[in-house]
Amino acid sequence: MSLLIVGTVAFDKIETPFGKTEKILGGAGTYIGIASSYFTDQMNMISVIGEDFPQKYRDILKDHKINTEGIQEVKGGKTFFWEGKYHTDMNSRDTLTTELNVLADFDPIVPEKYQDCDFLMLGNLAPAVQSKVLDQLRKRPKLVVMDTMDFWMDIAWDALVDTIGKVDVLTINDEEARQMSGEYSLVKAARKILTMGPKYLIIKKGEHGALLFDKESNCFFAPAMPLEDVFDPTGAGDTFAGGFIGYLAKTNDLSFDNMKRAIIYGSALASLTVEKFGTEKISYLTQDELNHRIESFKSLVEVDVKLLD
Amino acid sequence: MSLLIVGTVAFDKIETPFGKTEKILGGAGTYIGIASSYFTDQMNMISVIGEDFPQKYRDILKDHKINTEGIQEVKGGKTFFWEGKYHTDMNSRDTLTTELNVLADFDPIVPEKYQDCDFLMLGNLAPAVQSKVLDQLRKRPKLVVMDTMDFWMDIAWDALVDTIGKVDVLTINDEEARQMSGEYSLVKAARKILTMGPKYLIIKKGEHGALLFDKESNCFFAPAMPLEDVFDPTGAGDTFAGGFIGYLAKTNDLSFDNMKRAIIYGSALASLTVEKFGTEKISYLTQDELNHRIESFKSLVEVDVKLLD
Repeated sequence: MSLLIVGTVAFDKIETPFGKTEKILGGAGTYIGIASSYFTDQMNMISVIGEDFPQKYRDILKDHKINTEGIQEVKGGKTFFWEGKYHTDMNSRDTLTTELNVLADFDPIVPEKYQDCDFLMLGNLAPAVQSKVLDQLRKRPKLVVMDTMDFWMDIAWDALVDTIGKVDVLTINDEEARQMSGEYSLVKAARKILTMGPKYLIIKKGEHGALLFDKESNCFFAPAMPLEDVFDPTGAGDTFAGGFIGYLAKTNDLSFDNMKRAIIYGSALASLTVEKFGTEKISYLTQDELNHRIESFKSLVEVDVKLLD
Repeated sequence: MSLLIVGTVAFDKIETPFGKTEKILGGAGTYIGIASSYFTDQMNMISVIGEDFPQKYRDILKDHKINTEGIQEVKGGKTFFWEGKYHTDMNSRDTLTTELNVLADFDPIVPEKYQDCDFLMLGNLAPAVQSKVLDQLRKRPKLVVMDTMDFWMDIAWDALVDTIGKVDVLTINDEEARQMSGEYSLVKAARKILTMGPKYLIIKKGEHGALLFDKESNCFFAPAMPLEDVFDPTGAGDTFAGGFIGYLAKTNDLSFDNMKRAIIYGSALASLTVEKFGTEKISYLTQDELNHRIESFKSLVEVDVKLLD
């Protein structure tokens, strides 16, 4: 099934307790595209870059069979840049620099060839921009997944609510779910958020895993893989989203049971991403490496629970 | 299989965002005993209480078929008392009062009838006291599980290391595992702690679940049940331990696969404990209530992961 991805393609500069990088390839769209490439080769990307975006990074996207026709290049413009520093626990970080650059005036245009997409992944962006893509599609995709963050709750609440109302799956982190719903309990938060439109809610808890809720009060939990070292958490959530929707696009099965599997695949890919800086680890995985990690996840979660009489 | 439990029997006074209690029944031994009573009726308890311990609380222990012969009553003494207040997030609490009372001079004596125990649960106590029980047993139990906390790392490190060296399963929380090992990564922390003696390590992560590690690098994760409300977290860890060892005592199977099941049972019981104050919820559960919660856990964690080709 074909997958349309909307998300940033960016430069990141990252410092963690393990070291620091120069400007490297980053952005939600990048991580989503690379992660989903392990499941489908029909990926169309919508994004925006500046003239400073180097050929070697374009090549990484092309190596993953990502159609880049919908990535606008702004003449004389500079690519979106984020710089951040992680604390020792890797759960918190300081943003040192955010230069929106070409992202500030991003007006997404869906190329004609992208019209017939089956799955749509709206990476974290201004909700009005996310909506603009969805509204340009003449045929609604089978599944629309949306990622967002607290920033948009603070500055664009109405647009956020409007966009959330149009999607099938919303992914946010635990603190954002609490902020969005005003409920501390994630069960109550999920119930409230699911009245806003989405059929499914995924609450990402970082190193503590992810929860999937549906409107029928089904709930599934997938842990994060306990790792020797989390080297760089950047892109973990986007990789998760890309693996999740990529697996669904490949299997074309939107049952709750298959969504559980998609979450395991997303979690497995995210656990690989964080083992190196940026996209370094996730860029060129072998099928064996991915299968090996999936096997590790199976043994981490599989248990044959028996009821006592 | 018979189970010997060593742990405090105490008074707790608890305040949470949902309300507060007077002095109520508490103590690690109490929670462990009540939780394990859903699996075995051969429970022998070693503890100490004061003359102020009321008959109604003795009756609760007796109702659960706990043999209280090994609970010493100190004439004129007062029962151990703890008072605490939980913050809104329920993950942190302030201790307002700790009165050791009769616990200060507790010298555990194993009654002759307790000698032949198959399973031993050493609830959180001074490690020297835990050792004293183990050392009095003429025949080593099939399985010794030990719970401890950071307090003993700070004031009784050598005794703690000595006791840990004698047990089969150690249970501690994530921050304590980090403190004990000097490693931030829980994978690395587990590996180090497992060189100290235990064959298995359970790292409790509160609302984020629990991890089981063995020396062969097997790892299993069980989530905590997402709940509408966590009403009072007091005793959750002890309930978990009691459910864990109770399930093992009933099934008499010490394989890694069965330990996984025991962790699910421990987690299920812990998730019930926190739904009311103190031992209120856990004291009189029906088999149906427990089975219902186990079914909820099954659907929370079960996933049929398939490898892609």
